[in-house]
This record gives sequence, structure tokens and C-alpha cells, in this order.
Amino acid sequence: MTKATRSEVQVGELATGQALTVPLFTFQGESCEAPSVYIQANVHGAEVQGNAVIYQLMQMLEGYDIVGDIKLIPLANPLGINQKSGEFTLGRFDPITGVNWNREYYDHDVDIADWYQQHQHLDNQALIASFKSLLLASCQARLNNAWGISTGHRLAVTLQSMAHQADIVLDLHTGPKSCKHLYCPEYDMAAAKFFSIPYTLVIPKEFGGAMDEAAFCPWWQLADVAKQSGRALALDHGVPVSAFTLELASQERIDLADAKEDALGILAYLSHRGVIKNKVQPADMPRYGCYLAHYRKFYAPQSGMVEYTAKLGEPLVAGEPLVHLLRVEDYGSDNALLPVSLPQDCIPILHFASASVHQGTELYKVMTEVFEL
Amino acid sequence: MTKATRSEVQVGELATGQALTVPLFTFQGESCEAPSVYIQANVHGAEVQGNAVIYQLMQMLEGYDIVGDIKLIPLANPLGINQKSGEFTLGRFDPITGVNWNREYYDHDVDIADWYQQHQHLDNQALIASFKSLLLASCQARLNNAWGISTGHRLAVTLQSMAHQADIVLDLHTGPKSCKHLYCPEYDMAAAKFFSIPYTLVIPKEFGGAMDEAAFCPWWQLADVAKQSGRALALDHGVPVSAFTLELASQERIDLADAKEDALGILAYLSHRGVIKNKVQPADMPRYGCYLAHYRKFYAPQSGMVEYTAKLGEPLVAGEPLVHLLRVEDYGSDNALLPVSLPQDCIPILHFASASVHQGTELYKVMTEVFEL
Amino acid sequence: MTKATRSEVQVGELATGQALTVPLFTFQGESCEAPSVYIQANVHGAEVQGNAVIYQLMQMLEGYDIVGDIKLIPLANPLGINQKSGEFTLGRFDPITGVNWNREYYDHDVDIADWYQQHQHLDNQALIASFKSLLLASCQARLNNAWGISTGHRLAVTLQSMAHQADIVLDLHTGPKSCKHLYCPEYDMAAAKFFSIPYTLVIPKEFGGAMDEAAFCPWWQLADVAKQSGRALALDHGVPVSAFTLELASQERIDLADAKEDALGILAYLSHRGVIKNKVQPADMPRYGCYLAHYRKFYAPQSGMVEYTAKLGEPLVAGEPLVHLLRVEDYGSDNALLPVSLPQDCIPILHFASASVHQGTELYKVMTEVFEL
Amino acid sequence: MTKATRSEVQVGELATGQALTVPLFTFQGESCEAPSVYIQANVHGAEVQGNAVIYQLMQMLEGYDIVGDIKLIPLANPLGINQKSGEFTLGRFDPITGVNWNREYYDHDVDIADWYQQHQHLDNQALIASFKSLLLASCQARLNNAWGISTGHRLAVTLQSMAHQADIVLDLHTGPKSCKHLYCPEYDMAAAKFFSIPYTLVIPKEFGGAMDEAAFCPWWQLADVAKQSGRALALDHGVPVSAFTLELASQERIDLADAKEDALGILAYLSHRGVIKNKVQPADMPRYGCYLAHYRKFYAPQSGMVEYTAKLGEPLVAGEPLVHLLRVEDYGSDNALLPVSLPQDCIPILHFASASVHQGTELYKVMTEVFEL
Repeated sequence: MTKATRSEVQVGELATGQALTVPLFTFQGESCEAPSVYIQANVHGAEVQGNAVIYQLMQMLEGYDIVGDIKLIPLANPLGINQKSGEFTLGRFDPITGVNWNREYYDHDVDIADWYQQHQHLDNQALIASFKSLLLASCQARLNNAWGISTGHRLAVTLQSMAHQADIVLDLHTGPKSCKHLYCPEYDMAAAKFFSIPYTLVIPKEFGGAMDEAAFCPWWQLADVAKQSGRALALDHGVPVSAFTLELASQERIDLADAKEDALGILAYLSHRGVIKNKVQPADMPRYGCYLAHYRKFYAPQSGMVEYTAKLGEPLVAGEPLVHLLRVEDYGSDNALLPVSLPQDCIPILHFASASVHQGTELYKVMTEVFEL
Repeated sequence: MTKATRSEVQVGELATGQALTVPLFTFQGESCEAPSVYIQANVHGAEVQGNAVIYQLMQMLEGYDIVGDIKLIPLANPLGINQKSGEFTLGRFDPITGVNWNREYYDHDVDIADWYQQHQHLDNQALIASFKSLLLASCQARLNNAWGISTGHRLAVTLQSMAHQADIVLDLHTGPKSCKHLYCPEYDMAAAKFFSIPYTLVIPKEFGGAMDEAAFCPWWQLADVAKQSGRALALDHGVPVSAFTLELASQERIDLADAKEDALGILAYLSHRGVIKNKVQPADMPRYGCYLAHYRKFYAPQSGMVEYTAKLGEPLVAGEPLVHLLRVEDYGSDNALLPVSLPQDCIPILHFASASVHQGTELYKVMTEVFEL
Repeated sequence: MTKATRSEVQVGELATGQALTVPLFTFQGESCEAPSVYIQANVHGAEVQGNAVIYQLMQMLEGYDIVGDIKLIPLANPLGINQKSGEFTLGRFDPITGVNWNREYYDHDVDIADWYQQHQHLDNQALIASFKSLLLASCQARLNNAWGISTGHRLAVTLQSMAHQADIVLDLHTGPKSCKHLYCPEYDMAAAKFFSIPYTLVIPKEFGGAMDEAAFCPWWQLADVAKQSGRALALDHGVPVSAFTLELASQERIDLADAKEDALGILAYLSHRGVIKNKVQPADMPRYGCYLAHYRKFYAPQSGMVEYTAKLGEPLVAGEPLVHLLRVEDYGSDNALLPVSLPQDCIPILHFASASVHQGTELYKVMTEVFEL
Repeated sequence: MTKATRSEVQVGELATGQALTVPLFTFQGESCEAPSVYIQANVHGAEVQGNAVIYQLMQMLEGYDIVGDIKLIPLANPLGINQKSGEFTLGRFDPITGVNWNREYYDHDVDIADWYQQHQHLDNQALIASFKSLLLASCQARLNNAWGISTGHRLAVTLQSMAHQADIVLDLHTGPKSCKHLYCPEYDMAAAKFFSIPYTLVIPKEFGGAMDEAAFCPWWQLADVAKQSGRALALDHGVPVSAFTLELASQERIDLADAKEDALGILAYLSHRGVIKNKVQPADMPRYGCYLAHYRKFYAPQSGMVEYTAKLGEPLVAGEPLVHLLRVEDYGSDNALLPVSLPQDCIPILHFASASVHQGTELYKVMTEVFEL
């Protein structure tokens, strides 16, 4: 039986002087040839279920033969998790600046084409090692900026430094009220069939500030440059690093049994990638995909009290009611109870957490033009 | 078919100068002899389901013979309802002062024994009318205080002025995550069997600042004083005013079908009281009571992520797990996953809304020493 | 040169599992006969200046002969201090419950008259020691309550336990925008002339939940009971414990030079009480008093933008403008720029921190019927 | 004497159903040849001083000969202004999403080069009118998006529609704690000498989401395209629209006398531009500039209590203390009181509003490489 070892990583310092730290658990793999893994959870304060998944995963990993190194950081954002506002966790953005904690990762200021030009003489292994060092050094320089860096950026870049050391990066999130879905880069679509997740968003190469993008973007770009000179840096798709965001249903929810399902999905992927020696089969379930461009936001057309009628994860035909908008103050007029529907067939993936909305609140995110994976 | 008429009541003024108003709906009864009714909802911003109940009630009342006047105020606290903080409504307390919106009602500074001494020559009807005038004048004086009154107090006293004009007062709330329960003054326990609510808290004569207490306390005290001189001011229990708080399950939830159930329960009570001519039978369901002294709060003994395992509204035996407390940072120790139980048999009525808690967060409220009504 | 020793006191536990701790600094006095002192600061998160005063005080104490033990807790409320909301500290109340952090102290559930009856055979020193033990044991029992206690109550009772061990208790606060003022129990009015504070509020024996009251109320009551049997428990006023709240100007402000002034005022008092051997003279300044009953709150009569025109700490004649209320949306009417005044002469002590207010915002606190001390 | 007329513009709808409206004041000019003006204030909730400036400006305009139309919107963001959190206004970002209210303006999705190609046959006046129509139609289409638009975007695009109708756009803001400064597009640097503002940030053509950029960017781009074909669309710099952000000292402050100074500065500019017939001289004061690239943010290198020592608007030599960082919990070590300085000469323009900071809080913004205008 292998146990993870525990250490602490400092990610900041509170006004009262206490260090902001996150726990880091490490399973040492038997071989440094095998892919290494970095998993984090709870960067958004209310999205706690990933901690339960990490807990179940660590419990189960104790019984497996671990080949690659696995690092796990639950409770990754102590400021966000500890920031309550009323009975809920206000952990989606920095309460001082409003900046989304998951848009603070660093877009390395590197000319990748130029760097490749200078390093193309290296073999794949050496080239990859050298590029990894570049990313790590770039993070380090960022953290040491003479004019300082923001609280959220410090947290993000510190986490990113650990992610850059791994070949596989999993960032565990949840939606507000949500069914499970996966953010998967286009080059890695084959990976989506291992996780216990029915819906997959296929995302392009653009960096928007999130962890998964921070992990795969530079490598995807490097792979593209190499490909232009007819070289593949890695098997299959040529991108040496895999990174995914798993959205594990709703926020403000701990379900240990369900966490085990998702831990098994992760194990199935790690098994496939050779991180653990044992064979773990993915769950037998239908899985669907949708390109990010077809993932649509719907904003409340009017304000009111919301009865969320459409079921998450179930197809909804155009014109069928998504919500009922109750505007009791308009009692007596036709406007008092409004069915709201969409002009297009879709699968509702997540909806707003509160049952009352201003005009313009982001009410739903839905997949359109869904295809089977 | 009778329709309610709509008017607006000003309850304050926003920093930008806009009037804070609430909608007031009135069904005019056929007889001024019949009891009059005041119903309000959503004084706590996230507790929206009462608006749906008022909506269903108004829809149904259109088909009934209405004898007593019925006034209804949905969306009673616009400041609280419109105050979002992240994806939830931060509407339990004034965001400036922290004062609970439902602890701001006015404890009239009246010597009731003395007042009775001076007015006991009046017959019951005149005595009641005169006392009602006293309460209304006292509210008015409060609102006109030369040094001003606080935002929350102005809202509360304005609502209270309308409540004091009625013989029956219903304040519609919800818990955070909660099963349905009723706050019922001890003298009025017989009323509990009309509402569609399984659990009743029997409350004493003490004023803690809430609407129901504000409505019944002065009358209960007056009835007590009268009783001491051997006089009954009203049938049955002698208290001329009935006031209840209905906790209609969880906050941040609109369920129109369920709202109809609760509207029917209210109609059953109004039917019994002769406010509507038609006969409406109460729902056939078991109902239980608990004295407020046996309604216990349980605070998180340690911090952590919470899996709420006990079902709300279902008996829980002492020692059985109420929650699992996940402390993933303690992985490897016995402390990592803690079952938490209570030392006493109980029925869990409500629990905290978030799945992560500091030490000392109010985790549960449970009824103990429950009896059948 | 004496240095304070540093230790840590745990006051709670954050959702992420980290212990909430406060630093405790101790100067060991030469004699256990001399009065002992407890000083805390920053229980309200934005009221930071007390930390600077404690810092200056500790720096200066290094050069004095310290006779009585002195314990100092800066940064007493880490949850409150670290809770930002936008660019300010939201530290006046628990963000979950809304309860004011300085209304959470424990009102011991003790029948003091009865206790005195049973212990009156003891001499003063033994009686005082025994009562102190009672208070400490009562705090301990509270902290160990089987159903738990709230986050804020745990913090308060833990601090209170330390305060109960001292003979002199100083709680360092500030107002929002404020001039310096002191809360002083009526029996201890002579003490007010030592602090570097021009205005003193003379407060009665009622417990409202604040630290100073928690510290002196039980002793004041005990002294009263003893006095009824013709016994004095202590010199002068007979109350063995002194407790004050110092309001050190405005929140969100650190001024090290000004902190030194207030540290000197505290030293003057400690010198007078024999806690330090050295003679420290109080600042030569006029000092004024006002009974709590004459300390008036003024609430915004209308909403608007506020120009605070009256100077804090300077007499204002009835009818003179306190503020100008700008209601630019009413441009063109007489209502666009309203001078607001009070019906009574007063000294404005503090005003609201923001320049825009809803109707009913607590705009000012003013002293009326002020007298020279 | 000319009075402004008042109307209301709806910018959204609150959860309770009330319309969110802003007041719009209009002075009709004598000639439609003269430039028209749009001025708004208080898009960030705590930045209230612009309302006082608009008030003073309207008072003074009553006595002038007004040639061009002037529209003024004070209190431009009712949601932001009315959102309190504790004693301060939490109005910098949408409390639901965290998005800065002044980063929500619309970046028209227009191919300007292509549009110019098709419209270059028009004379300047017609071309400008046609481009204006394009921008207005584009805003309208945005507001009518079938999937809805966010609350903040609706507010911004509605305001932007009004700004696009004007030739001169002024957006009145403040810093947190700040001296006065102006955001001025590079092409319009000559305008900076009219306002009563000592420091000017010279900004480039990039769109970051703010009102001023939204107003001038499309015109600047159009002017550039025209210039490439050797055509000037307007006198001087060729850009037909002028737009500035005025930062009028600190937030949470109303100062009517100071507002008059800034109103006079605006009048001086409007006089220069021929919007009013009367001659108003700019204030005689030194004015300095700094390119945006040399405007530096400084983040707190450690956490602590902050004594802001450097004076805003006064030169600070490299190495001189900017702040003292008090870390009283480190009493006894060298770390307890840290002077913090910058590696470069600068003029501190603004600093953080609170006196306690986490590591990484944006502490100061400073101008470097300042030049005389």
C-alpha cells in the first residue's frame, strides 16, 4: 500500500500576516519514464466536490501500482474558499478586484517559433525538457517581478509552476447548478471517452486565462511549429502535454459516492496513459461533444423569479420552456408568468444558482449542435 | 370572478433617489365583520417561494367568495431581494449594518396594563378598535421620529402598519435548505392543522423582533391583562389576532406546483376562519409539534467540507450520522473523514446552505421531544 | 530592557482547515500584587489603528519598569480583518450571520446575589480570586458546549477568558470617520482624564454584548451586592475591575505618530494605576463627557450624495448644517441640494464612512448635553 | 437663463421588477453646427464626485450662451451606486460576475477599412454622419441580441448609444485615494491644458472596454484609414470625436467647492471648442503628462497594515519610503515595521483605499518619466 506524502506550498500572505498555504499530496511513481500527473481542485471557492474526488482518488490509489508521479492539490484557493458572503461561498472572483480566480494564469511572453528555431537540434526528450525548463523559469521570473504581482496572479502562477512539471493536468471544477461536463482541447478528443462525464466541450487553442489553457497552449503551439517542419513531438496528436477541466456537477455540494464515480473515471484515464499499472475500465455510458463555438449563453430577457423547468443534461426542443419567469408584481397582466424558451434545439448544461434574476443575468449555458463522441 | 387591485407602498429611498416600493394587492371582502388578512412574502431576499404562493393564492382567490378583506405583499423587501453577492442573494440582513431584516419590527413602547385600565369600560369591539388605533398611531409616530429611523426599521414598521390593520397575519419565509415548518404561537396551536405543513414550532409570548411576534405580542399581552379581570376579548383563546410564520422549504427555489399546495393550505385556514365563504379542506397529513425550547441549533464542531447525510424532515436516532465532515487536508489521519452525530433523537428541520463551513457555523436546526399535533 | 514574549492563541478553524490564531504578547511584571492588564485591538476588521498603538506601546514599554503583567493581542479578529469586500475591509460583522463581532461576548448565566451569599465569608482578595475563577470556568464551559457555539461567540469567549484574568481591560476600536472618544463606565469616570482622548461617553451597567461590558458588568454587579451589605470590594468605587473601550479616530487608517500619542495616554493611565513604576503624565488637554442617554444617532432623512460639512469634535449649534444632501436627479427643484441640520446643539463625534446614503442610513452620532470632565 | 430638461433612460430591470433608470439632462444648443457633448458620472458606484461636478456645471450653464447640445447623465449606474457592502459602496464591478462596470463597453465588430472603402465618396460631413449611424445601429443590434446580453453590457451599450451621438464625451470617475488626473488619447493632447487637472495619462488607440476608448477608438481608426488615402476628416488631428476620462480625486467624497473648480475646467474646454459662446479661461496651473506605458502599478510585496506616507501628486525620489508596512505580529523581529520604496523616481497618483493589505494587493499607481505638457 502506497500512501501519499503531504507537504505545504505557500501561495500568499493574509493581511494578518498568516501564510496562505495549500496542501500538496504526492504519490511517488516507480518510473520517471511514465507520464507525471498534476491534479488540483477548488480554485473557485464554492466548487468543493473536486476535494471529495481527490480524497476518493487518494484512497483508491493506495491500492494501485503507481508508475508515474502524481501530485494532488485539494483546497487550492484558501482565500476563495474561506470567503463567505451570507450562507454561500463567494469564491468565484477576488473580492477586492473582481477578477475570476481562473483567469489569472500566466500567458508566457515567449516567441515560441523563435525558441524552436534555436532548439530544434535537440531530440524530442531533450527539447521537451528544455521547453519545460523555459516555462518554469518564466513562472519564477514572474513571481519575482520587482513591482510585485497581484494576489490572484501569485496564486495562479504558483499553481501553474507545479502544473508545468506534469505531463497530465486535471483541474477539478463544478458549474453553478450543472450536469457533468469536460473541457477538452481539440487535439485530445480521444481522451474524453475515459472520464465518467457525459458531455464534452471541445476547445480551441486560445488562451483565456484558465489553468487547462495555461497548461496546454504553449505545448500546442510548440507542436504546431514542429509539425510545420514535419516533426512530431509526441505520439498521436503530437502535443506532449494533456490538460482538462472537469466540471463535476453543481457547486456547494459534497457527495462522496458520486466522487468515487469520478475518481474511477480519472483512474481509467490514468490507466490508459500508463500512470498506473492496473487496468481500470472507463464507465460504459454514452458521451457527447459540442464545439465551444456552439456552446451558447442565454441571458435573462427580463427580470423575475425563476422556476428552472428544463432538466440539465437532457435534450430540449426549440420552443419548449426553459424556465418560467414569475413576475408576481405584474399579476393581472399577461406578463405575470412568462414561459421562456430558446430558438434552437439544445442540451442545457448549467443554470444560474439563484432563483431570482435581474435582466441580463446569465441564466443558462446550453450545448447546441451536439454530436456523439 | 374577483380580481385583486394593485397599489404601491413606499418603504424607503435608494441612494440614487429612486423610491423603494412594494406592490400591494387587495381583495375587497363582502363584509367588514369577517376577519381581515395580511400576507407578505420575501422579507429575506433569498426566500422567494412565498411570492409563488401569493401568486397561486391570488389566482385561486379569483374563483372564491371572499368575505373578509385580504391584502397581499409579495417581494416585500426590494433592497434585500435585489442585493446579490456572487450567484446568490445576500438578503438575510442589511448589508450595511448586518441587522437581520426580520428582527427590525417595532416593540411598541406601551404600558398595556395601564392602557387597559383606562379603556376597560369599552365593549370588546370598541376596545379592539381602540387598541388597533393605538398600535397604528404608535407605528406612525415611530416613522416620523425627528432623529430619523434606520432603513430596515422603516421597512419593517411600514409593513407592520399594514399588518396591524388585519386580524390574521401570515409571513411567508423559507429556511436555507429546509423542510416545511410553521412558527405558531402557543395560544393558536389549533390553527396548525390547517396549513399544508408537517412540522410546527410552538412559540411563547416573547418579542424577538420578527413580524409574527410584532403582530401577536401586544394582543396576547392585552388578552392576558383582560383575562386577569376575568374577561375574554375573543373566542377560543381570547387573543383577537392570529399571526404565523410559514417556512416554505428551501430558499433560492421557485416551484409553482408546490406553491399551489401551500396556497391550498392557507385557503383551508382562511376557509375555517370564515374569510372565504367556500369550504376548503386541509390536506390530510400527519402533523407534529415541538416547543421552541426544544428546537436546537447545532454548530460545526470543526471546519471542513460537509456532506449533508441526514434527510430533512425524517427522524434521526441519536448517534446516527448527521453529516460527514471531509477534511481532505488531514488525509492520512483519522481526522480526514469525520461522521458527526447528535447526542439526542431528533428531526432535522433545516441545514446550512453551503457545503463548506468554518468551525462554529450553524450547521443544523433540529426538533427534539417532538409530539403529534 | 524588557521584551514581550510572543505566543499564539487559537480562536477557531477556517473551512480549509487552517487554525485561526491570534498573536499574544506578554510583558511579565515584577509583582503579582500589581494590577494586571489586558489590551486587545482590531476586533472590528477595519479598525486597524489599535495595532499601531499596541506596537508603539510595546516599543515604549521596553524602556519602563513593569510591575504588573501586561498582555496584548493585536489583530484580534483574523476572520474580520482578512475579509475584504471591494477595496475596503468588511469586518464589522460576521459575513455569514450579520452579527456584530463586538456583540458576541458572553453574559454569564450566574446568580451573583446568590453566589455572594455563599462566598461572603471570604476576605476581599479571596472573594475576588474565587469570582474570577467562576468567570473563567463559566467561559470554559461555554466553549465546551455539547451542541457547539458560533464562530463569533468562540472568538469572543476565548478573548474574554484572557480579559477576565486581568484587572484592567482596554479594547481598542475606532469609529467609521470619527474623532477620538472613550467608553467609560460611570463608576470609573476619574480614569478618563488619563487617556489622550477629548470625549468620553459615560456608560451604565447594562450588558449589550461588548468586551468592556463583559469585563466590568459582573464585577460591577458583585460590587453592588457587596455594597448593599456595607462592604467595599476595592478602593474608590468598589469595583475591582476597570474596563474601557478606546475609539482611536477613524477606521482604515494607520498613523504611527498619532499612535504614539495614544500609547502615551495608556501609559499615563497604567502609571497612575501602578502597573509601571515610572511616572507618565497625562496629556494636558480639555476633556468632555456625555451620558450614553444623550449620545444620539441621526439617520438620513432622505437618500442622496453627502457632503459632510460639520467638523468632528467641534461644537455645532442647532440649525447649523451638518451635511449637504445632493440629490442631483432632482436638479431644477428645491430638493436638489438640501442642507440638513439638527434640532439641538451637539458635538458631532462620528459619521458614516460612505458619501452616498439610502434613506435611513445612520449618518451621524453626536453628543448632546456635554459637560466638562 | 437656460434650464436643462430632464428625462429618464431605462438601462435594465431589477429582480423585483422595477425598471433601472438613469436621469438624463439636456441643454438644447442654439446651433446644430456646434459640437455636441455627452457627460456621464458615477459608473463606478463609489465614485460620486462627478455628480457634484455635473450639478455645478448645470448650475453654471444656466448663465451661459449654449451653442452645442449638452447631455448629462449623473448617477449613471444605479445598480453599482446602490450596492453597499458594510459602510462602503461596492460599486466597481458587477457583484454577480465580478466584471468591472467600466470594461463592458462594446467593441463594434466592424471592418472599418472596408466600410471606408465603400463610403469614401461621401464628403466629410456625410461620411461622419453615416459612420455615426453605423455605430448607433450596431449598438441597437447588440441590445436586441436574441440570446440576450449581460446586465453590465446592457447598461454600457445603452450609455454608449448616447455617447456616440456626441462629438465630445466626458466620463467622470475618481480613483480610490487619488489626486486628479486625466486619461487623454494621444491625438488630443492639446486638450489637456483646459481641464483643472494637473496630471495627464496619454493613452494609445487600444480598446480595453472603457467608455472613453469606446467613444474614440472607432473614430481614431477611421481617421487613420482616411489619412492613409491622404484625407483629413477633421481639423487638427483629424479625429472627429474627442473623449476623455476625468479622475476627480478620491472616491466616497462629495466636495461642492472643489466640484466647481472641475466644472470650470470643463467649461474652459467647452468654451475652447465653441460649445458655449462665452469665454472661460482655463485655470493657471502647471500640468504634466505621462505615457500609459510608464504608468506603473505596485503590488504589496508582503501583507500588513499600511501607513501611506508618500503624498499623492508630489514627486517621490527612488528609495524614499512610499509606505510603512506594520506587521505587529512580527514584533521583536526586523520585519515588524518595514519601509517600502520604489526603484525609480515617480509621482504617486493613487493608492489603495484600505489600510490593511494582503500580499499582492495593488498598493499604488505611479507615473514615471513625467514630462511637462
